[in-house]
Amino acid sequence: MVHFDNDYMAGAHPEVMRRLVETNLEQSVGYGFDEYSEEARQRIREACNAPDALVQFLVGGTQTNATVIDALLQRHEGVLTADTGHINVHESGAVEHSGHKVLTLPSHNGKVSVQDVSDFIRNFNNDDTYEHMVAPGMLYITQPTELGTLYNLSELESLSSLCHEHHIPLYLDGARLAYALASPACDFTLADIARLCDVFYIGGTKCGALFGEAVVAPNKALLKHFFSLVKQHGALLAKGRLQGVQFATLFTNHLYEQIGKHAIELALEVRRIFVSNGFKIAIDSPTNQQFFILPNTLIDHLQQYATFEYWGPRGDEESTVRFVCSWATTKEDVKLLEDAVLAF
Amino acid sequence: MVHFDNDYMAGAHPEVMRRLVETNLEQSVGYGFDEYSEEARQRIREACNAPDALVQFLVGGTQTNATVIDALLQRHEGVLTADTGHINVHESGAVEHSGHKVLTLPSHNGKVSVQDVSDFIRNFNNDDTYEHMVAPGMLYITQPTELGTLYNLSELESLSSLCHEHHIPLYLDGARLAYALASPACDFTLADIARLCDVFYIGGTKCGALFGEAVVAPNKALLKHFFSLVKQHGALLAKGRLQGVQFATLFTNHLYEQIGKHAIELALEVRRIFVSNGFKIAIDSPTNQQFFILPNTLIDHLQQYATFEYWGPRGDEESTVRFVCSWATTKEDVKLLEDAVLAF
Amino acid sequence: MVHFDNDYMAGAHPEVMRRLVETNLEQSVGYGFDEYSEEARQRIREACNAPDALVQFLVGGTQTNATVIDALLQRHEGVLTADTGHINVHESGAVEHSGHKVLTLPSHNGKVSVQDVSDFIRNFNNDDTYEHMVAPGMLYITQPTELGTLYNLSELESLSSLCHEHHIPLYLDGARLAYALASPACDFTLADIARLCDVFYIGGTKCGALFGEAVVAPNKALLKHFFSLVKQHGALLAKGRLQGVQFATLFTNHLYEQIGKHAIELALEVRRIFVSNGFKIAIDSPTNQQFFILPNTLIDHLQQYATFEYWGPRGDEESTVRFVCSWATTKEDVKLLEDAVLAF
Amino acid sequence: MVHFDNDYMAGAHPEVMRRLVETNLEQSVGYGFDEYSEEARQRIREACNAPDALVQFLVGGTQTNATVIDALLQRHEGVLTADTGHINVHESGAVEHSGHKVLTLPSHNGKVSVQDVSDFIRNFNNDDTYEHMVAPGMLYITQPTELGTLYNLSELESLSSLCHEHHIPLYLDGARLAYALASPACDFTLADIARLCDVFYIGGTKCGALFGEAVVAPNKALLKHFFSLVKQHGALLAKGRLQGVQFATLFTNHLYEQIGKHAIELALEVRRIFVSNGFKIAIDSPTNQQFFILPNTLIDHLQQYATFEYWGPRGDEESTVRFVCSWATTKEDVKLLEDAVLAF
Repeated sequence: MVHFDNDYMAGAHPEVMRRLVETNLEQSVGYGFDEYSEEARQRIREACNAPDALVQFLVGGTQTNATVIDALLQRHEGVLTADTGHINVHESGAVEHSGHKVLTLPSHNGKVSVQDVSDFIRNFNNDDTYEHMVAPGMLYITQPTELGTLYNLSELESLSSLCHEHHIPLYLDGARLAYALASPACDFTLADIARLCDVFYIGGTKCGALFGEAVVAPNKALLKHFFSLVKQHGALLAKGRLQGVQFATLFTNHLYEQIGKHAIELALEVRRIFVSNGFKIAIDSPTNQQFFILPNTLIDHLQQYATFEYWGPRGDEESTVRFVCSWATTKEDVKLLEDAVLAF
Repeated sequence: MVHFDNDYMAGAHPEVMRRLVETNLEQSVGYGFDEYSEEARQRIREACNAPDALVQFLVGGTQTNATVIDALLQRHEGVLTADTGHINVHESGAVEHSGHKVLTLPSHNGKVSVQDVSDFIRNFNNDDTYEHMVAPGMLYITQPTELGTLYNLSELESLSSLCHEHHIPLYLDGARLAYALASPACDFTLADIARLCDVFYIGGTKCGALFGEAVVAPNKALLKHFFSLVKQHGALLAKGRLQGVQFATLFTNHLYEQIGKHAIELALEVRRIFVSNGFKIAIDSPTNQQFFILPNTLIDHLQQYATFEYWGPRGDEESTVRFVCSWATTKEDVKLLEDAVLAF
Repeated sequence: MVHFDNDYMAGAHPEVMRRLVETNLEQSVGYGFDEYSEEARQRIREACNAPDALVQFLVGGTQTNATVIDALLQRHEGVLTADTGHINVHESGAVEHSGHKVLTLPSHNGKVSVQDVSDFIRNFNNDDTYEHMVAPGMLYITQPTELGTLYNLSELESLSSLCHEHHIPLYLDGARLAYALASPACDFTLADIARLCDVFYIGGTKCGALFGEAVVAPNKALLKHFFSLVKQHGALLAKGRLQGVQFATLFTNHLYEQIGKHAIELALEVRRIFVSNGFKIAIDSPTNQQFFILPNTLIDHLQQYATFEYWGPRGDEESTVRFVCSWATTKEDVKLLEDAVLAF
Repeated sequence: MVHFDNDYMAGAHPEVMRRLVETNLEQSVGYGFDEYSEEARQRIREACNAPDALVQFLVGGTQTNATVIDALLQRHEGVLTADTGHINVHESGAVEHSGHKVLTLPSHNGKVSVQDVSDFIRNFNNDDTYEHMVAPGMLYITQPTELGTLYNLSELESLSSLCHEHHIPLYLDGARLAYALASPACDFTLADIARLCDVFYIGGTKCGALFGEAVVAPNKALLKHFFSLVKQHGALLAKGRLQGVQFATLFTNHLYEQIGKHAIELALEVRRIFVSNGFKIAIDSPTNQQFFILPNTLIDHLQQYATFEYWGPRGDEESTVRFVCSWATTKEDVKLLEDAVLAF
């Protein structure tokens, strides 16, 4: 049985694990004040071309979103997002738990459109009763999105300009950022992200780490007292050096890039397998999540050989499914999948 | 330089680390639905003699306290604690962040007294304006306390009876529970804890794990929908099996007990060193944290050889300091400390 | 200049004001424990045919919604509402301030459809990731809606059955309830509301009182500790007897009914004026809010004689406007409006 | 039976009521944008010698405290108060409901000492773990305090200097401010309050209004977006002009001053009655609340003639009681009390 359910099924990339073992018996101060955390912060600042950035490590994605959004919003403000955004759908109301409204915009294959954001803000500003409404206080986007799609550089620049014109921060959820940066469709760099976003996070959990996300704020003044907020949100790891060791490793010798490339290569191979055998693509994703519309009979057949996610029916005889590759997916896994498809 | 600052300075106990490495490339479903997590839950239920217990893994202590307290309290209720309680002092207001008041009682060497709890509840119930006040909705205790002291079995039984008489849950923070159970002063078992407390957590972070805390509710009906709350608090680890592997290991072959015993043995040796050399004990702790009143000149001297925590002045010439041992402390570390004391 | 902007432009109905003056110098205990409040509660229980109902007075509508919703929801739950619902649009995020998500359904002229509610709950229950999502924990409806429309008895019965089948409470916002009950389209009674809804409020502010809303829970067990929550939300009036005097007066000699009838009579007269002069109805409302599509030239003309609300453009030459009548609107006001229309 | 229980037992001062009746049928825009509210704001700015002040009307005291504190604190901060402070004891956790910790200082007859505040802030700043603790973000004081005592001008100046030195706002709860300003012990003016406090509120509910509190921020930049927060807290009255009419009346022809003077005169007469008959003062209050230690037999005797508050036993044979006067207390009431005391 081979696994394409998700990108958090294995532990850590072996190189990351190796460093955790090597440093295991060392004694360090806690909470990220150790030298590995400092090294990781420095490496991330360099990779982002953001020498003065605040870099703070948290444990997981929902936690990171809730904490950053809580830090950026004023009390009368809410966060704009595509209605498919992770914060709107799959975080059990973590944003609202901290008192903030999630303001939804239509999803265009997982993305918000510049026009929709602009219209929302303009309508709010023009509404006589705006003081009775939740103000759009920041924009949340995911890159890649929950549907595997990407904002290109031009879209990021437009969203960034729009946000700054209206004095609201742009926040990018990079839970799978490695897989965006490694996509053939990617026309931006990590430095572009850092230049255009006010805050973003570099995902570790789904991109080679055991766990961990690195929040980056190129202008650190935007996240004053963030350390205390991280603690208040229960997001501060006692053994902060665990995140330091992991991110320092991921940002040494281009490991984070290689992890992305490996997964994308195999994801595109999965895509080739289905397309070349005449099956339909459900969402045109250039990243590590691939979505297909498959006959239910094929789905039944494949489930003997592979695990993957069922996303719902498409008429009576077909359904949408998702296949995900990660650093842990192997060429052999993909070959087995191909054999299974061919055997149908 | 040897380190006695805290019990979260090293990584994981080597046996825990070994199992993480062994299982690293396996692929599992997320969020604790894997077989390692199930094994760990089962082992913990057995160790607690609580076969129907809900066991849920979280990442860290502040997070665990905030989530459990949020789950147990009704909105008009607050949580009773000693004023020295971790939730009152060192969690950046995490309990209040979820909307709950922390109701403080005097600390008696880190502990609450049965009398004080009883008086608080009786005074509340007898107050004409009680509906304008925050109701005492649960009792929070730590075992061992922040000052290393222990509630003995009789005290636990009294607090448990009192809570149940007033229909409020008793919650025990066991961040350092291994070091309580291994103390020579311990007259209770893990099963006693499970019998007397409504909810408690078995600390992993400070007791041999890389990270992780195991919440146990012997009567699972007390924590309905807890999984969603854990997610809402950003406390749900994607790779839940990491906690499963760690706790399954800690509860195999009595590793958790051995970890506690090792630390206590060395902590009592540290105590012997100072006492036998004529120095004063600040708090009479039978666990892995030891508190001494030392001459400032000795403190200066020792700082060349060892790290430890400064707790504040005691007059002009002495200060209180804390030395902590853990599974990672070695006999050699303690010997070096003794040599340093003797060289004074 | 005559005023049709809203239904909270004047003070209190003269009869209510008379009683406030008569009782002004009496001394009463606070917080609603006085005899006027008890009389008002009793009169409301009788009018609702709900002899055991909890009746609690609050000050305003947003406050009432936020407090009731906070009281009814568990932490992992959100509140279902039409996307046009007041709680979703015009309460500055008060529901989210207490930590709850507002779950939106399509508005059908201000109403939710039974099918949409049913689908939402079924989809939630069938979703594998439901524990990562906010559970639908209650249904919020307004009667009449923000667009003046009404749920008829059959719709209320269906929504009530659906909610109870899924064990979630049905909550009805009756800010303008007098104007629903007095509508010719109304086929239900206050007792029907009390029979079908778990909690609802009888609006005072817009229906003859200076201020005040009466929350009714026919089964009081649903709102345990509600008094403390009202206090916690800052919604408890020291001089509770002010609400008692007002609601006792409103529910004496059918004053609340008369207030509704008066406003509806005049609102339908306003409707007749525009319709008989060939202008279009924007929303078919049988209550005290009337919505028309008028030529912009007519709007300009009318603004010399009357105030009313502008709701937005309809093409280049027409716009939607709202005219509202209340107990304070007079026949003379409506006649002046008619003269102004005829003079166009 | 005469009543000394509290200062919110009657309706409004007759002059306030008269103006409410006179303006009752006028139609105004809502939410405080009417001309009466503007007049009231202007009169208050003049009385405070604070021409640029933000003045916002809310309904009640708990609501006002919760909203102002929520507006002033950053998320990692809490509010300093005497442990007897209303926000700590009698607001059902309203401050915590918005996510903030109440940080308590010892009460010195209801007051905080400059030294204690200074020590708290210094200790916080010097604590190595301060980022794990809730930062002191503002100081809350009441004037007069819950025990009737007053901060004199020198104390206010010291507290103000201290707060500003540490860049935290000073907030004064003036629920009974009229009775402070009218006290013979008062050596400050309303303008002094406005000069020394960053935000304060002028109590209406207990000082002549039906209800209503006027928040004043001499430097309006401190309360940005306050209107939306008031709405979010459910504290915005639809018929805002009710507060406008009331406060405009209270600040015309020195009515607010007269109300205070009348109550203080009678309160001091009550004091004279008990003292001259040999009974003990419990707390030396120069304002409208008077506290005595009376024999239980006298208390029993008096309860046939008067209502007042029982505060608790003082040994076996005596108890502490509170007598409160307000604008609604009459000379006849006090005479009846005296007769009852003399008849003992």
